Amino acid sequence: MYPTQSCPLARALELVGERWTLLIVRDLFFGVHRFGELVTHLDLPRAVLAARLTALVEQGLVERRPYRPDRDEFHLTARGRELWPVLHGLMEWGDRAAPAPGGPRRLFLHAACGGELGAAGDCAACGVTPEAADVTMRSGPGRDAVRRTDPVSRALREPHRLLTPLTV
Amino acid sequence: MYPTQSCPLARALELVGERWTLLIVRDLFFGVHRFGELVTHLDLPRAVLAARLTALVEQGLVERRPYRPDRDEFHLTARGRELWPVLHGLMEWGDRAAPAPGGPRRLFLHAACGGELGAAGDCAACGVTPEAADVTMRSGPGRDAVRRTDPVSRALREPHRLLTPLTV
Repeated sequence: MYPTQSCPLARALELVGERWTLLIVRDLFFGVHRFGELVTHLDLPRAVLAARLTALVEQGLVERRPYRPDRDEFHLTARGRELWPVLHGLMEWGDRAAPAPGGPRRLFLHAACGGELGAAGDCAACGVTPEAADVTMRSGPGRDAVRRTDPVSRALREPHRLLTPLTV
Repeated sequence: MYPTQSCPLARALELVGERWTLLIVRDLFFGVHRFGELVTHLDLPRAVLAARLTALVEQGLVERRPYRPDRDEFHLTARGRELWPVLHGLMEWGDRAAPAPGGPRRLFLHAACGGELGAAGDCAACGVTPEAADVTMRSGPGRDAVRRTDPVSRALREPHRLLTPLTV
């Protein structure tokens, strides 16, 4: 795809640089694991979502887990979960570079001690840099800037441990 | 562009999610500041490069600096330079998720003490997390995996402080 394949950035973008892919990865961190929930929350064409998920599975970043005989959930693999610092860094940068009216919509906390994560992903209270599984997300001051009423958006407003399936 | 504008990740991708944009930002960190050098090194159509640079200037991530009466260089603004942790994190992740034959092509060192930067961008020797201006790049063990002979690629093989114009 990119000619400069020898650069690790170009290789990273081969894996996650397609339009929508990082937003899908974000939702998997947030606990949105089912196809229908992803369609609802991301509001993207089903064919695009299916193609992106298939690519992520082939690349070893996402795995399927059956939750009914005929239905799979999609979960990040260990390699996919290693994207957390990059994803958190991009969200932090997005909040600084293009601030939302009313402030951040979501806050990320170190689950063990409740401290807020800083720009580098480290806990402001205890200094640890937690993995995504040790991070809790809750609504921030900008939570009402966009008032989406779909069930996934509503569930995401409640305090929630990352990588834990949402109760929709 | 993305419908979920309220998410800081979607806003970040509005600014840097277009194909090629992060590779251009990477080259600006590496000291490649002139249009012709960027075309040579990235091997992309001139019209695409011009469009991406115009967008980056309009968004306040890049600024023009004249180096001749009729020619500008392109430099990252303070906001653009704040992308360093994300860019470094993506390169680190790319090297782990899709390792290059022979190992990393480039290494990033803390200029003040010579320590190598870890995955989180912190110096393995002294623990500081340096800004891009305090980072030196040099060739790694995989430097010969792709033997490009254009003058920009040759200049990038020499030890070099980030954000400092290359001598091509």
